[in-house]
Parts: sequence; structure tokens; C-alpha cells
Amino acid sequence: MKKYCFGIDVGGTSVKCGLFTTEGQALDKWEIPTRIQENGKYILPDVAAAILKKMEEKNITAEEVAGVGIGVPGPVNDNGEVPVAVNLHWGHVCIEKDLEKLTGLKVKAGNDANVAALGELWKGGAAGRRSMIMVTLGTGVGGGIIVNEKVIAGAHGAGGEIGHVHVEDAITDPCNCGNYGCLEQVASATGIVRLAREELEKSQEPSSLRGRHISAKTVFDAVKEGDALAIRVAERFGLYLGKALSIFAAVADPQVIVIGGGVSKAGPILLDFIVKNFKKYAFTACKETEFVLAELGNDAGIYGAAKMVL
Amino acid sequence: MKKYCFGIDVGGTSVKCGLFTTEGQALDKWEIPTRIQENGKYILPDVAAAILKKMEEKNITAEEVAGVGIGVPGPVNDNGEVPVAVNLHWGHVCIEKDLEKLTGLKVKAGNDANVAALGELWKGGAAGRRSMIMVTLGTGVGGGIIVNEKVIAGAHGAGGEIGHVHVEDAITDPCNCGNYGCLEQVASATGIVRLAREELEKSQEPSSLRGRHISAKTVFDAVKEGDALAIRVAERFGLYLGKALSIFAAVADPQVIVIGGGVSKAGPILLDFIVKNFKKYAFTACKETEFVLAELGNDAGIYGAAKMVL
Repeated sequence: MKKYCFGIDVGGTSVKCGLFTTEGQALDKWEIPTRIQENGKYILPDVAAAILKKMEEKNITAEEVAGVGIGVPGPVNDNGEVPVAVNLHWGHVCIEKDLEKLTGLKVKAGNDANVAALGELWKGGAAGRRSMIMVTLGTGVGGGIIVNEKVIAGAHGAGGEIGHVHVEDAITDPCNCGNYGCLEQVASATGIVRLAREELEKSQEPSSLRGRHISAKTVFDAVKEGDALAIRVAERFGLYLGKALSIFAAVADPQVIVIGGGVSKAGPILLDFIVKNFKKYAFTACKETEFVLAELGNDAGIYGAAKMVL
Repeated sequence: MKKYCFGIDVGGTSVKCGLFTTEGQALDKWEIPTRIQENGKYILPDVAAAILKKMEEKNITAEEVAGVGIGVPGPVNDNGEVPVAVNLHWGHVCIEKDLEKLTGLKVKAGNDANVAALGELWKGGAAGRRSMIMVTLGTGVGGGIIVNEKVIAGAHGAGGEIGHVHVEDAITDPCNCGNYGCLEQVASATGIVRLAREELEKSQEPSSLRGRHISAKTVFDAVKEGDALAIRVAERFGLYLGKALSIFAAVADPQVIVIGGGVSKAGPILLDFIVKNFKKYAFTACKETEFVLAELGNDAGIYGAAKMVL
């Protein structure tokens, strides 16, 4: 009788772990450090040890565990292998096979952004829906596309890599991916700072942003105070993201679009700027697509990972 | 024992019908007129009569038929219903239920562009692959996205409606869909004529296109003859479509992109203009995505429709 499952979210500095019931109730959450030394060879053994220790602590037998889901910052192919994961110093790693050997449990691996999307669909902002586009606005722009409750992982592990679509011809400095003018360069936390700097340099117009450390948070705080320059920054951000989302919607046509990541802490006002532009450019049948904010924050990864094995 | 299936492709003027073995061999193909009079009330009865007559003619019993797949020019929801299909003068029609009642056979309905994509995946240019983006360049721009051999129909029946993504801010006349600057306005057969007229008006530069009736065919014929102005038109077409496809690939990350429709008769040279721009803008992991021309022509719809019931 399968009563439990584990959800693991491997990040560059720490690994988030969760023990769940198969109904999706979180029974325990904890973290262990990510040891990236020696090409990350300790990461999976550390994860396995953490799981086995938790099972012992809670008197859980292997027969009671449906499996272990694990999200990693890199592409995962259909065989549960990662060709390369830069942040973990990994070359080719057979995650599913290796972790199964180490734990004796069934393992399912996925890309972290896709897994987080699955978490939001299971127990977060998109709960109850079957299809979604999730956009994670953090240092970068991540994405996850889910159709009929299945993640679109992609033929090259690049499904939902929506941070790297081209949206601006005028950008002359390269994105982390090597291309120029990616959505990530104008709609991430860093991208919002870029837009704010551009607006500040364009004029001498007074703004509460002048002479301060600028972040996505200070920009949206200023927007809430009615700062005209900050509002222009938010308008540009919303135009880039809303227009891009209107294109993604014509491809995948989801029930709901979920906005998450650190930038989404700005709250509902963020959605206003995005939705307005989305509606302007979206295909008729998609114009009323629902937008919601993500709800699980940093826990989306462990929820989604757990869901993968159910 | 199921040995046969029918594939039906309903167009605005005629209905293409196909009788297939369950392995995908076409045994018979024929057409009947589409009677759109009286809100298209005769269409499904005519289709049913055609199927039943063919079964009688070939001595095929209902037990031997896996079912009837039918593609229609409109969105089809999860219940096999069409909310509206303008070209057929249909309001709300329960295709699957109605045609099942009329034939006594299992029926599966889908949007015609999606169904054509499925046909190319089954027996056409993308045979043997599991995921694809199909672009149909005809009077309009249609699309179909397939992941793990399943069509992405979309929450609002708008999955793969890639003809109506916004690609050009400068266009001031509306698209058929009501928006401005859609891909269809610059990359369809009509769109290519638009681009050619623009280039012809911009200068007095000599071109074999001057003083002639212009079509997508005359443009690409001129391209093959080295006409500089026509090549500029093809470059602009390729930039719009290649860039848009790079965005779609970051969403769905298919194994292969298939280019079909009347415009694709221009042949491999068409792909050159598209692929060059696709490679420039695509996310690293997707840059080498394969491009092929569609192979089934007008038969893609009946093949894909038949595949739906298998």
C-alpha cells in the first residue's frame, strides 16, 4: 500500500526535500546542502541518505513509498538522464537509474522549472486545472508548459524555455544563453532593472528611483506610489511579457497562465500590466485566458517533484 | 476484428473522404460536395451516407471498422463539439455524437489544421517522429502542434493557432481574426503578395515581378531566377516566419518542423529562407531542429483524421 512519496528539488546551493502523503499533504520539509565538489558526485548519495534517514526516523518502509520525484536545474531527457547541468557541475548523469540504485525506490526526474509548474498545477495557483503556462520571474525567466497534466519536456529538453525567445532587436549585449534580445533580458528581475536604468538615463524626470539601489521590488514599490517613471518601466515590462505570452497561448492554449518567482511578490498589480497587453495581442479565443499568481513559492519544486511519481 | 477506418476532411466546398486499413494504407479516396445550405444541416448526413454506401460497396461490416475520424474548419472541444464553424455555416454542432448516431460507428473529431499535422506525423514528412510543429502556408497560415503523438487542441480550441500571433507593429489593416500584425498577414500566400507589393512600391528597381499578376508562386519563381527584389521579399517572409518558429520551438521544442500548404510547393528553397532565420533566433538547444516539407498535400487531412480513431 503506497502511502507516501518524496519530492526533491536540487538547487545550486541547497537541496529542498519534502515527504508527502500520496494525496499531496506535506508531512515534513527540510534542506540539505548541495555539494557540487568533484563534479557533483556527492549530490545523489546525499539525497539518497537524506531519504533513507527520513524513512527510518518515521518508520516508513520501502513498500509504503510510491517513489521519489526529483527536479534538477538542467534538461532531463526521456530516459531520466541529464546531459549536462552547469550549476551542479554535472556532466552526463543517469539520475533515475543512479538514485533508484541508491534508494531502492522508484525515481522520476525532471527539469526544475517544469517540475515547479507541475507543483503549482497540483496544489498551487493552478490547482484543479489540466493545462497551464507557468512563468517564473526571478534572476532569469523560467517556464513550464503543461498540457493534459503532462509537462512538455521537449525533444531537446527545451520545452518551456520561454525566457529565451527573441523579443527585442535593439539589445546589443548577449543574454546568458548567447543570443541577443531574449525575454529574460527585459522581463526578469535583472531585466526590470535594465529597463529602469534606461528610463532613468533617457531624461532628468524626477523619480523616487533616482539615486537608489534599484531592484524589481523598488520599481514595483514606486509603481504602487504612483511614480510616473516607474510606471513606464512596468508598462514596458508588461508589453514585452504580455505580448510574448499571447504568442505562447496561440501555441499551447492553456486554461491558465501562472506568474511566479521573486518578481511576482509585487502582487496583483504585476498582473495588471501583463494582462492588459496579453489581451491586446492574443488570438480571439484566448483573450480571456485566466491569469493567477503562483502560490507555493519555493515549495513548488518539491510538490511538483512528488507529483511526478504518482 | 478492426481492419478498416475512415478519414474525413470537411472543407468549405468539398468533403474529402478516405478508406484506410488500420495500418494506414489508403484503399479508396473520393470527394463529395459540402452542402452549407440551411446552416450546414446536410453536411453530417451526407458524410454518413457516403461512409455507409462505401461500406456496402466494399462489403465491410461495422464490426470491421475501427471508427471515423473527421477534421473540420473550426475549433473542436474535448467533447467533440464545434462551438462555431464559420465556413460551414455551423453554429454549435455535436459532431461526434451526431455522426455516431448517423453511422453507428465510433467518431473522433478534430480541427482540420491539427488533423493535417497528425497525418504528416503518421504517413507524411514527419513519419516516425513523436513531436512536431506543422505550419500550413495557404491563403492563411494554419498550424498544428503535436507532442508525444497527441495534438495540442488547447483549452479554447486554439492550440496551434500560430497564424494569429503578433509579429508586426507597423500593419494598420486588420487580419481576418480582428487583430493587427498577425503572422498570417505576412507569411501566407496573401502575405507574400503583400510584401511583394510593398517592395515594388518602395523603389523603381527593375524586377520580373513588375506589371505581372503577383502570387506566392510568381515571387518564388522570380527568386529562383535570381531576381533581387523577389529575394528581398523572400528574406522578409523568412525573417517573420523563422523568428516566429524560433519562439514556438522554445515553447513546444518539437523533433521536427513541417512546412506545408500551397506556398510549400516552392520547394526546398523556401526552407532556406526560413531555417536561416530560425537558427539565428532559436534557443541553443533547439537550433538544429529538423525542417522538412509536407508530403501528403491535400491528403494530409484524411490520413490524420483516420489516425485519430486508431
